[in-house]
Amino acid sequence: MSLYLHDIPLDKAKAALKSALEDADLWRVLATENIPLDENALGRVLAEPIWAKNSSPHYHASAMDGFAVRAKDTAGATLTAPLTLQIGEEAQYVDTGDPLPDGFNAVIMIEETEALDVDGEITSAIREPKSIRIRAAVAPWKHVRPLGEDIVATQLVLPAGHILRPVDLGAIAASGHIEIPVSRKPRVAILPTGTELVEIGSELKRGDILEYNSLVLAAQIKKWGGEATRFPITIDNFDLIAERVVEASQNHDLILLNAGSSAGAEDFSAGVVEKLGKLLVHGVAVRPGHPVIIGMINNKPIIGMPGYPVSAALTGEIFVEPMIAKWTGRTPIELATVKVELTRKTTSPAGDDDYIRMAVGRVGERMLAAPLNRGAGVISSLVRADGLAIMPRGIQGAEAGDSVDIHLYRSPAELERTIFCIGSHDMTLDLIAQYLSQRGRRLVSSNVGSLGGLVALKRGEAHLAGSHLLDPETGIYNDSYIAKYLAGTSVRQVMLVKREQGLLIPRANPKKLRELADVTRSGIHFVNRQRGAGTRVLLDYHLNLLGIAPEQVLGYNNEEFTHLGVAAAVASGRADCGLGIAAAAQALDLDFLPLFQERYELIIPEIYFESPLLAPLFEIIEREDFRKTVANMPGYSFGEEK
Amino acid sequence: MSLYLHDIPLDKAKAALKSALEDADLWRVLATENIPLDENALGRVLAEPIWAKNSSPHYHASAMDGFAVRAKDTAGATLTAPLTLQIGEEAQYVDTGDPLPDGFNAVIMIEETEALDVDGEITSAIREPKSIRIRAAVAPWKHVRPLGEDIVATQLVLPAGHILRPVDLGAIAASGHIEIPVSRKPRVAILPTGTELVEIGSELKRGDILEYNSLVLAAQIKKWGGEATRFPITIDNFDLIAERVVEASQNHDLILLNAGSSAGAEDFSAGVVEKLGKLLVHGVAVRPGHPVIIGMINNKPIIGMPGYPVSAALTGEIFVEPMIAKWTGRTPIELATVKVELTRKTTSPAGDDDYIRMAVGRVGERMLAAPLNRGAGVISSLVRADGLAIMPRGIQGAEAGDSVDIHLYRSPAELERTIFCIGSHDMTLDLIAQYLSQRGRRLVSSNVGSLGGLVALKRGEAHLAGSHLLDPETGIYNDSYIAKYLAGTSVRQVMLVKREQGLLIPRANPKKLRELADVTRSGIHFVNRQRGAGTRVLLDYHLNLLGIAPEQVLGYNNEEFTHLGVAAAVASGRADCGLGIAAAAQALDLDFLPLFQERYELIIPEIYFESPLLAPLFEIIEREDFRKTVANMPGYSFGEEK
Repeated sequence: MSLYLHDIPLDKAKAALKSALEDADLWRVLATENIPLDENALGRVLAEPIWAKNSSPHYHASAMDGFAVRAKDTAGATLTAPLTLQIGEEAQYVDTGDPLPDGFNAVIMIEETEALDVDGEITSAIREPKSIRIRAAVAPWKHVRPLGEDIVATQLVLPAGHILRPVDLGAIAASGHIEIPVSRKPRVAILPTGTELVEIGSELKRGDILEYNSLVLAAQIKKWGGEATRFPITIDNFDLIAERVVEASQNHDLILLNAGSSAGAEDFSAGVVEKLGKLLVHGVAVRPGHPVIIGMINNKPIIGMPGYPVSAALTGEIFVEPMIAKWTGRTPIELATVKVELTRKTTSPAGDDDYIRMAVGRVGERMLAAPLNRGAGVISSLVRADGLAIMPRGIQGAEAGDSVDIHLYRSPAELERTIFCIGSHDMTLDLIAQYLSQRGRRLVSSNVGSLGGLVALKRGEAHLAGSHLLDPETGIYNDSYIAKYLAGTSVRQVMLVKREQGLLIPRANPKKLRELADVTRSGIHFVNRQRGAGTRVLLDYHLNLLGIAPEQVLGYNNEEFTHLGVAAAVASGRADCGLGIAAAAQALDLDFLPLFQERYELIIPEIYFESPLLAPLFEIIEREDFRKTVANMPGYSFGEEK
Repeated sequence: MSLYLHDIPLDKAKAALKSALEDADLWRVLATENIPLDENALGRVLAEPIWAKNSSPHYHASAMDGFAVRAKDTAGATLTAPLTLQIGEEAQYVDTGDPLPDGFNAVIMIEETEALDVDGEITSAIREPKSIRIRAAVAPWKHVRPLGEDIVATQLVLPAGHILRPVDLGAIAASGHIEIPVSRKPRVAILPTGTELVEIGSELKRGDILEYNSLVLAAQIKKWGGEATRFPITIDNFDLIAERVVEASQNHDLILLNAGSSAGAEDFSAGVVEKLGKLLVHGVAVRPGHPVIIGMINNKPIIGMPGYPVSAALTGEIFVEPMIAKWTGRTPIELATVKVELTRKTTSPAGDDDYIRMAVGRVGERMLAAPLNRGAGVISSLVRADGLAIMPRGIQGAEAGDSVDIHLYRSPAELERTIFCIGSHDMTLDLIAQYLSQRGRRLVSSNVGSLGGLVALKRGEAHLAGSHLLDPETGIYNDSYIAKYLAGTSVRQVMLVKREQGLLIPRANPKKLRELADVTRSGIHFVNRQRGAGTRVLLDYHLNLLGIAPEQVLGYNNEEFTHLGVAAAVASGRADCGLGIAAAAQALDLDFLPLFQERYELIIPEIYFESPLLAPLFEIIEREDFRKTVANMPGYSFGEEK
């Protein structure tokens, strides 16, 4: 039970790591290696400055095809009073790139000369005349690339710590080098541990946890300029883990010991570090990421990474990236920041540095940020994150409307072409996202339910909202809700798709359910959605039409919060059926008994309807191939309501 | 002589290429390949969208170590009225990550329970009690990670065209995939041609041109997501070039035929393209880059790249990058833009799209851009460039003070830590740049001479200026010039270094020169610097002290514009000596006869003197190791003037 866990502030933890590395003489570039000057040098970091060995050009070179002359010999030449220069003595033919003959200091373009033969007559042998006639004077060094114009021998071409780009390789070649002194790539061992872990590709049983942290960490290491070795999974066994750590420490510069996500698992890590070396830090006041361990073994740093994927990835960014930067000699990665307005209140523990994943984009004049799922196990929140808000220790959160700094994962240009869609989520939005991404737009959709979407539109926090709000009085979708919640805002309702709702039932329909009224049959256990969910409104509407009272439905008060929760209840046998969409049935391999069609509309404020930002959206939803794909999805159509 | 050259506008050339690719059904992702899900997938582009195969978590999972319960069984429990739940029936122990037993819907953290033994007494077997006592109710789904919390089976995980990052690999794994469908890397053949070309590492003779365009192009291709094959140099021979092109077209998607920089050389390229296939474009109204050739051979695109390195690299950015983007399915690279104020007037040809390399940085409140060397052969201008100003066709330039858009090669954060140094250049500035780069600063130095530097300070266009302006009246450096040119601006003069000026002479000093007066000896040819150069002022001052008239110096009017020009004149035997700095002698392997020491000072406006931006500069110039390195450079010292 985290016997040693004792959170220390993030800055103290960073300082402890730095100081341990300094003591071990490891707070520096690890080593220099000379690599060939070829395209594989791209992205490597210069370990030493590049000083020019030679000048470029290494001689005064003609910049044109023409005749080398002495500028003073051309003085006085005009259109009406041409001068004639003798080839050899006063002029010599040069191609572009040719050395300027000694004593000459300018070039006249061949187009600006008249070639003359031995008799002084114009000749067609324009490159081998006996003399040339010129009709303008030239200034010294005209059309000449002087020695060292590009690079002067002995000058600094590139400083140490520079990350090599394509043009840099050209400049290094031009300055006379054939090899490049770069920092050696740090070697990082990644050791996943945990008895519950299974390798990617395994058949998953309940309780199995896919081990992909080592994959994410290895890719981070590669991206930051290191080389990762992924070790196989080690079960929670002290001796086995210790053995692996010792093995890894032989030929790696850093060991990342990744504990399972079980709260007790990092005890093995801490124990192993304490036994084999020195445990410096056990627990850091950072969220997500608390159970970070830092230690030194055999003069090598070892970091115990938390098991939850978001925690592991952010711990990599916070602790590992700066270390690799120092070891390779480059500047640590510094994300660009942008000031944005928060759409929702967020709270942070006062004692922690809190890293909050954010969706960011412009809606009208405002740059907005919405906090994403805070769960440390939700890797998709990092995939979706446009940036991080960092709430420092001592700050307990921020209010909706507050201005906060976001450290951006994406370029500002990408944010400008982001379409914010808030409201009820639907599979077709995923498909639209895919089409939009081919058209230079990014669809960021946030699932807060239909009503939440209308409220977001009212607040000016989205470009559009997906909505399927049935009015139980009228049986008409959305209209009355828009009138109520978006009064005074001019909006368009775009019918996107008809979506089937039906009963999610076990494969082969063992209880022989045929219609909604069957849920009142004796012994049929129903599972419901929470109050306020669109699907629950739909159920109540149809029960009412059938004259069925909620009390007649066994399990009416048995609530789940998502379509998938309903599906899971049916899949596990806790319920015989529930109302939901076909996709949820498909996701958990259930059967689906279609009952009703509902209208799924996009609600779009007039001001965005005509905007260039949204234009590709309307092109997509009219496309034949898009409509065909949607119609082929289970439970979707564009036809009339049943 | 560019017989076919007929410039067309850039947009027309791009359209011609696109249309030819469309006709050949090549304006699309070339092919999809499935690669293993490992860290080597980093940076690859998804050729197909990733739809989730399974949900994550794939079961309702406990998020804590504790006891799974039914929320309704806990209703009513308070601090003073605890409830007891029987293990098995009402509560079951779960570790973090364990599946929630069927029928349970919440978890109580172990810390919030009291473990009881068979007699109802508190026991230390906290994980295996007979019952637990709780003192608070829990809400449904508390401390539970519901099925699909992260990823729901069938949802879109990532769209096609997405460039894979470390966290994406985790999400792909979590969604049940073991392979990734990515676009095949386009294969690009790079064929350098030109009789004057020599391979990197060759001993350079006058007239040789180092072939490094293929290196830069190959690195560009690699960076953009392709695979390059660098062919050996082909001499200017039509049949040999044609043979190579045919060979390359067999197993590559694109051929880059790089002509030498000679103006006639691209005729071979155009002729080869015309003979083997279809010549679509010969000449594009873009600067630099005019002689671009576009054609199709064997249903493969071929681009004739200009020979000058800047033209070749920019032609890559303009024509090749968007093609590779299309072929791999990603969005073309879009550089961030920033509005800046131009420090100098620039002119552009009205008929061309003009790409101007710019140094960009903040000085005080203003974001400034200074045009860099415009020469197409000056690769170092691309290395130094912070961005590009693109002057479209029809625009003839911009005035100093105009606001222009810069397409940035660097992040805005880098620009904010840039120190602008304008004025006389000195080797020690290179060394300072190297030290600064280790301290999070970037020194951008621009060589406009000492006086130009003072004028730039006056205009507020630099943070500091290097200056060695001798007053011929007083023999004192800088003071009188500062008084005159920076009247009203409070500046500090920081003595940086003493620099020796002396005679650059051939090795072994064949003419036995010993002192400045020797330049008047019969038969000694001198080479001078241009009027206004600091070195010329120094010469005149000392000639005057010695009572020597310019007429007594043979070659006094023989002017060169740089230290290196003087060195080159001596090295080639055109002159016996010239006045210059030791580094110039060293660069061309000459001897150096030290004569005078001059003060090289940094002139720094008071407002920047105390700024955090410049703080590291003063730390550096006081450092022992810095001063030692400078003192070891030929001709430098910190001592008193001679």
